[in-house]
Amino acid sequence: MEKYTVGIDFGTLSGRALLVRVSDGAEIASASLDYPHGVMDTVLTTPDGELRLLPNWALAHPMDWLEVLGTVVRRLLAESGIVPAQVIGIGIDSTTCTLLPTDERGEPLCVDPRHAGDPHAYAKLWKHHAAQKYATKLNEIAARRGESWLANYGGAIQSEWAVPKLMEILDEAPGIAEEAAHFCDAADWLVWRLTGRLTQNTCIHGYKCIAPDGVHGPTDDFLAALDPRLPALIRDKMSAPVLPVGSRAGVISEEGAALCGLLPGTAVATGHADAHVAPPSAGVPRAGHMFAMIGTSTCMLLPGAEFVPVPGVCGIVKDGIVPGLWGYEAGLGCVGDAFAWFAENCAPEDVKREAGERGISVIARLSEKMDALLPGESGLIALNWWNGNRSPLGDTDLSGLFVGLNLATRPEEMFRSLVEATAFGTRAIIENYREHGVPVSAFTASGGIAQKNPALMQIYADVLGMEIAVGASKEGPAKGSAIYAASAAGPERGGYRDIFEAAAAMGSVSGKVYRPNPAHRSIYDALYREYLALTDYFGRGGSDVMKRLLALRTAARAGKPRA
Amino acid sequence: MEKYTVGIDFGTLSGRALLVRVSDGAEIASASLDYPHGVMDTVLTTPDGELRLLPNWALAHPMDWLEVLGTVVRRLLAESGIVPAQVIGIGIDSTTCTLLPTDERGEPLCVDPRHAGDPHAYAKLWKHHAAQKYATKLNEIAARRGESWLANYGGAIQSEWAVPKLMEILDEAPGIAEEAAHFCDAADWLVWRLTGRLTQNTCIHGYKCIAPDGVHGPTDDFLAALDPRLPALIRDKMSAPVLPVGSRAGVISEEGAALCGLLPGTAVATGHADAHVAPPSAGVPRAGHMFAMIGTSTCMLLPGAEFVPVPGVCGIVKDGIVPGLWGYEAGLGCVGDAFAWFAENCAPEDVKREAGERGISVIARLSEKMDALLPGESGLIALNWWNGNRSPLGDTDLSGLFVGLNLATRPEEMFRSLVEATAFGTRAIIENYREHGVPVSAFTASGGIAQKNPALMQIYADVLGMEIAVGASKEGPAKGSAIYAASAAGPERGGYRDIFEAAAAMGSVSGKVYRPNPAHRSIYDALYREYLALTDYFGRGGSDVMKRLLALRTAARAGKPRA
Repeated sequence: MEKYTVGIDFGTLSGRALLVRVSDGAEIASASLDYPHGVMDTVLTTPDGELRLLPNWALAHPMDWLEVLGTVVRRLLAESGIVPAQVIGIGIDSTTCTLLPTDERGEPLCVDPRHAGDPHAYAKLWKHHAAQKYATKLNEIAARRGESWLANYGGAIQSEWAVPKLMEILDEAPGIAEEAAHFCDAADWLVWRLTGRLTQNTCIHGYKCIAPDGVHGPTDDFLAALDPRLPALIRDKMSAPVLPVGSRAGVISEEGAALCGLLPGTAVATGHADAHVAPPSAGVPRAGHMFAMIGTSTCMLLPGAEFVPVPGVCGIVKDGIVPGLWGYEAGLGCVGDAFAWFAENCAPEDVKREAGERGISVIARLSEKMDALLPGESGLIALNWWNGNRSPLGDTDLSGLFVGLNLATRPEEMFRSLVEATAFGTRAIIENYREHGVPVSAFTASGGIAQKNPALMQIYADVLGMEIAVGASKEGPAKGSAIYAASAAGPERGGYRDIFEAAAAMGSVSGKVYRPNPAHRSIYDALYREYLALTDYFGRGGSDVMKRLLALRTAARAGKPRA
Repeated sequence: MEKYTVGIDFGTLSGRALLVRVSDGAEIASASLDYPHGVMDTVLTTPDGELRLLPNWALAHPMDWLEVLGTVVRRLLAESGIVPAQVIGIGIDSTTCTLLPTDERGEPLCVDPRHAGDPHAYAKLWKHHAAQKYATKLNEIAARRGESWLANYGGAIQSEWAVPKLMEILDEAPGIAEEAAHFCDAADWLVWRLTGRLTQNTCIHGYKCIAPDGVHGPTDDFLAALDPRLPALIRDKMSAPVLPVGSRAGVISEEGAALCGLLPGTAVATGHADAHVAPPSAGVPRAGHMFAMIGTSTCMLLPGAEFVPVPGVCGIVKDGIVPGLWGYEAGLGCVGDAFAWFAENCAPEDVKREAGERGISVIARLSEKMDALLPGESGLIALNWWNGNRSPLGDTDLSGLFVGLNLATRPEEMFRSLVEATAFGTRAIIENYREHGVPVSAFTASGGIAQKNPALMQIYADVLGMEIAVGASKEGPAKGSAIYAASAAGPERGGYRDIFEAAAAMGSVSGKVYRPNPAHRSIYDALYREYLALTDYFGRGGSDVMKRLLALRTAARAGKPRA
């Protein structure tokens, strides 16, 4: 009897699930569900009415995730005709750090009527950036003390991560911090719902909770310097066992079975991060082989044989991507998001009409028009910092820029410059690794953009000067989670011994390889130098105009009467 | 019997005419005609087929102007019922330097079949920027030689002006330079058509032909250093008498009467520049009172009692605006043009639909949305250099910039930042005068934008920190030309002794005055400092990225197969 696994990827706006055949990785069925609450970033609907959120807030509702869990697995089974007994494991990944306060039994505080009116009781999404001031404080104190683990995080902890978010709650909602029994990342919380056992995993814990290798990390003394209540909070409320990714967190409980529709006793993999889980979907992860998830944002994952400190990365964590290798993570905070912003705000009527008539997306039509342009032809360059700069600057207070505009500039030229800027940002990360002695010898892309946008991928190959292979799965994270589920199930259930064996059998790349066009090399080298110079000017202290503009914006909005 | 004058303004895309009552300036009738050929900036249709123009070219067809002259005066008379005997004078202004090669009799070379296939035979519009390299050469040589007249032109001669355009023709079309008997600016050529007498005027000649005061100017030795053929060309082909603005160039000839429909013997004012002619439309021009024509571009005209060298101005010319005062000219190369670019390329579908439903322009709808925003709220700042920077940098190779973009940025915020950038550019020019000891004590705005866009005018008042009066006429230049016509007619025909007497009787401002909002002052002061810092970085050598992007663009386009 054929064996199958389920992988579920909890993204920013929806949950996506795959049913995968263990023998060869064939994707038998897929299902997805948009979150009913979406991202709550302007208004929070509470039992007591609507609450206007401050700028940079971004919340999720955990009940949305349970709705996904309660829907998609049953749909996979119904669509495929596979019976639960054939499913040997389930893997779950999610955005991170997406942090949720719960009570002792794991009930989210936001479903408790006593707390439902407090935005701090909800899940703070990865892209909740309101904790920047706490991250800034953390980094200042850590730098002053010369904390050794800073080297694992490119010299700076980002506002998206757990500790700044915990500091924010302690400072702004001490009652919630007090009331919560646990603070869980989304994936760990979902694994807990399925297994009845609260665990953490080396990936999310390592990257987002400042635990790079199970040895180093913030001391209580350091944490107390941030906030005297912090050591106890972390010791008491974020202390579940940390299991290596690829291992089994447990098996589905009776309650978990009722929730998702699989059988009790089915293996459940440890939680994983939505990008970090994906590399096995394109084959066996190896040191020096970069895997980039190009989507809303781009997460660039690089397994490495040893630890080398590299400034400007997001994290260097042992067992952070796959067990046994160091996981180097860096990324761009805004890629598909910026393209969607452009399509929404700047795409002209004719482009929208043409897209509508042909039943393609506005981004697809813009990409066709962009593809008819030559490198350099627009005379434009952009800084792709619409959502700040994640790597190598680690600064969410930066913003986007277009330069070179003139009266003949067309929207598709602006769009191309935005796409090119994300490619330059990708190259800057790769060159930063190489300059610090971390090899990057191959590049595989995954994610919707990589598969749907050949014009963009060719620009990336030209800008990077590297061949780019593309993962075969349209759902890299869900596929990765399904492969991790086969590793968690183990040979005794019909799965695999480890993630490498599972990836070899179940992962694959498409036939399409993008090769750099030599004719474009010198032009893109020249534009890349401009990108680096503008990065230095706007991002490294040449001018702090972006920060001052943000401060003016914040002040103006704070003083504005509500619409 | 009431007396009347006609003023005709030859703009970039159309000719606009007014019939004005001499006693009180009442506008009795108006008429306009779009040029059949429009601006030819991509393709030139010649008898031998279509010719693709290089970037930065912009041509006009002089027959379009004659069509205006042959149409609009008759329409004014027909509409008003005024008979030609009541019209005591006509005044003509045009864009400048809009330079035209003609034969001995004044026939444009471009209508000669032998030359119609050569783009150099057409009128090169003011915004023809392809002569930049000649302007650069001119300025380098002038600076090296320490030419004293450079101080009258802010230290640099612009590519739009006559000498670079003559150098371009000598270098790229020596046959045209040889064949031409005269090179005329549009207004002077039209006056010639009407009177049969070729003249020049102190305004256009002073600003565009490097003749600041009838004494100083380039020597033959200097001109020969630019091109050995240049002294003879200017001596032989641009040597018509130079008359002060406000004086009479002649009277309408039999041919001129047949052309325009007025009586032979009617007074014809000297030609004038389309902005410089306008200040009398808003009352008597005085030293220190700035008059800004805010339209496609902004021309800022400041009469001054004495000559003070100011860097970065376009020109300081005796009798250049009104006789008897020094005329200080500076300006922004791209204002309404930039707004139109934005409306065309970046205005979203809903804004266009709302504008269409209400029968208002897209810019008007964007302006309403912009008006609902507070200063600083967008977190954006722009450099308004979509068409280069005219003042104070005098550099057409600069380009536009937006900084501060983020995922919440809305098109109306970008639009507002573009409007604000033109206000900052205006303030930079005013402060530059003050810093060099030239007083600017009052500000009057004219032009379509000043009258149609109260949201923009309020931003200007806030940014400048000055009250702004608005000229009453919707057609400031045509009105100014009609007032100059009354001065040219003189008391003996029922006109006025001079332009000041004419302006006192015929010019007026509207009742609307925009006053600075004190609450906006500190925010705009902060944003203005950012504007200056970005100007220094991108425009004064901090980074030459804009020039390098332009070079890449030019190279890419040169190598691209024709579409």
